[in-house]
Amino acid sequence: MKNSHIGIFDSGIGGLTVAKALMNVLPKENIVYFGDTKHLPYGEKSIKSIQEFSTKIINFLVSKKCKIIIIACNSASSAVAQSIAKVAYNIPILNVIDPVIKEVGKVCSNNIGVIGTKATISSNIYEKKFKLLDNNANIRSLATPLLAPMIEEGFINEKISSTIITNYLSDKRLANISHLILACTHYPLIQQEISDYYKNKVTVIDSATIVAKYIALKLKKLDLLSVSTTKNHHFYVSNYTDSFEKSANFFLKKSIKLKEIDIFS
Amino acid sequence: MKNSHIGIFDSGIGGLTVAKALMNVLPKENIVYFGDTKHLPYGEKSIKSIQEFSTKIINFLVSKKCKIIIIACNSASSAVAQSIAKVAYNIPILNVIDPVIKEVGKVCSNNIGVIGTKATISSNIYEKKFKLLDNNANIRSLATPLLAPMIEEGFINEKISSTIITNYLSDKRLANISHLILACTHYPLIQQEISDYYKNKVTVIDSATIVAKYIALKLKKLDLLSVSTTKNHHFYVSNYTDSFEKSANFFLKKSIKLKEIDIFS
Repeated sequence: MKNSHIGIFDSGIGGLTVAKALMNVLPKENIVYFGDTKHLPYGEKSIKSIQEFSTKIINFLVSKKCKIIIIACNSASSAVAQSIAKVAYNIPILNVIDPVIKEVGKVCSNNIGVIGTKATISSNIYEKKFKLLDNNANIRSLATPLLAPMIEEGFINEKISSTIITNYLSDKRLANISHLILACTHYPLIQQEISDYYKNKVTVIDSATIVAKYIALKLKKLDLLSVSTTKNHHFYVSNYTDSFEKSANFFLKKSIKLKEIDIFS
Repeated sequence: MKNSHIGIFDSGIGGLTVAKALMNVLPKENIVYFGDTKHLPYGEKSIKSIQEFSTKIINFLVSKKCKIIIIACNSASSAVAQSIAKVAYNIPILNVIDPVIKEVGKVCSNNIGVIGTKATISSNIYEKKFKLLDNNANIRSLATPLLAPMIEEGFINEKISSTIITNYLSDKRLANISHLILACTHYPLIQQEISDYYKNKVTVIDSATIVAKYIALKLKKLDLLSVSTTKNHHFYVSNYTDSFEKSANFFLKKSIKLKEIDIFS
């Protein structure tokens, strides 16, 4: 069981930022990644559809005998947060929201900004979860749907990204925040540009590293840390194109091969 | 049969620009529209997946007794151009590419630019079809994948759209063109901005109006023009969200209701 894979899934390629952080924090772990490129992006889809897709993916990762599953997508994390709890699985299923809420809740209780997809922001999941912590933080959230396709197209650190980022972050809904949660697994790739926009006066929270550290603690607590000395990662997608593979290499900063598998028919 | 509906489909909401042009040219026709919002956008998906989705949608529109079907999506038009010909349907199935090739082929034979999604551009469908016309046009094509999400998010006629449009159109692959084909049904909404970029020195081809006129001629030739005096349009999507409905109203410039229907399970 210790050397079983960690299952990670996302609507597409963005969740690889979490896989990458995990490889840094826990280099002995092996990963089975599933990117639902057939249905991407989830950010515009209905909660019901995202729940259906996620359930099928979780069943696939369970069939791969994963010891733990990470929902590395904020839209899916918010959509399945409640529905998945009703289904019994024998392994822990973590999302990318809870570890961030816990971490940010320790240091900050006011004027927290959240940016993400329409699905994530309209779910109000961050506000609801902060309330569960008895933290009456004033959450200021804004859907920023053009950022994910912008990043996927490689528009980073140049005029287009700077124009789009400035347009979103200057929105009055984000005025006077002290912390900004990047509630989309694509956004770590523009973390520096966002920090630059704020001239480092706002703390920009990258969930990938927080989530990776949280998983490390969780596996340690469960005595499930891998002792494997071999590398055996697998990267599956529901729809293969050369372009997705190119994006995957870009997000992971290493050369990998994607395998197409149909788990939806 | 004359008063049967015209079936139109797209990966999402963009095909409504064709529906709108059709309503202008043929105000007596009734339309059944299907937007595959569950799988949108098609532009990034594999040809095989787009063919699967399109076949199911065509079967759905056939079941609605449509007299003609329009594939109002360039990615789907290019993906199914060959596969669909192999399948026997009793009604005409038109795409948005052939009418444009025919029209542009009449007036121009050199330095034609084409912009569209990755799926459309990588299919080289425009180049192949121009060759079939014995038109050795020099086609210069460029994938412009950020334009569709940009338009869907309402970034039109302002700084972000101007920056993105300038970035794409200044690409050297589009240098010295005389005509530019907008090979995506979203793009009519930025036709003016594109013309402005070229200071009217390049003829910008909006496929929606050309396609609508072509359908009118086709229906006349087949003696299938509607004589109906009642309005009875239907707008279906595979995934309903408020945001899609808002976009639909924006694209069609009138208030409509979307109905969700599951034709894929």
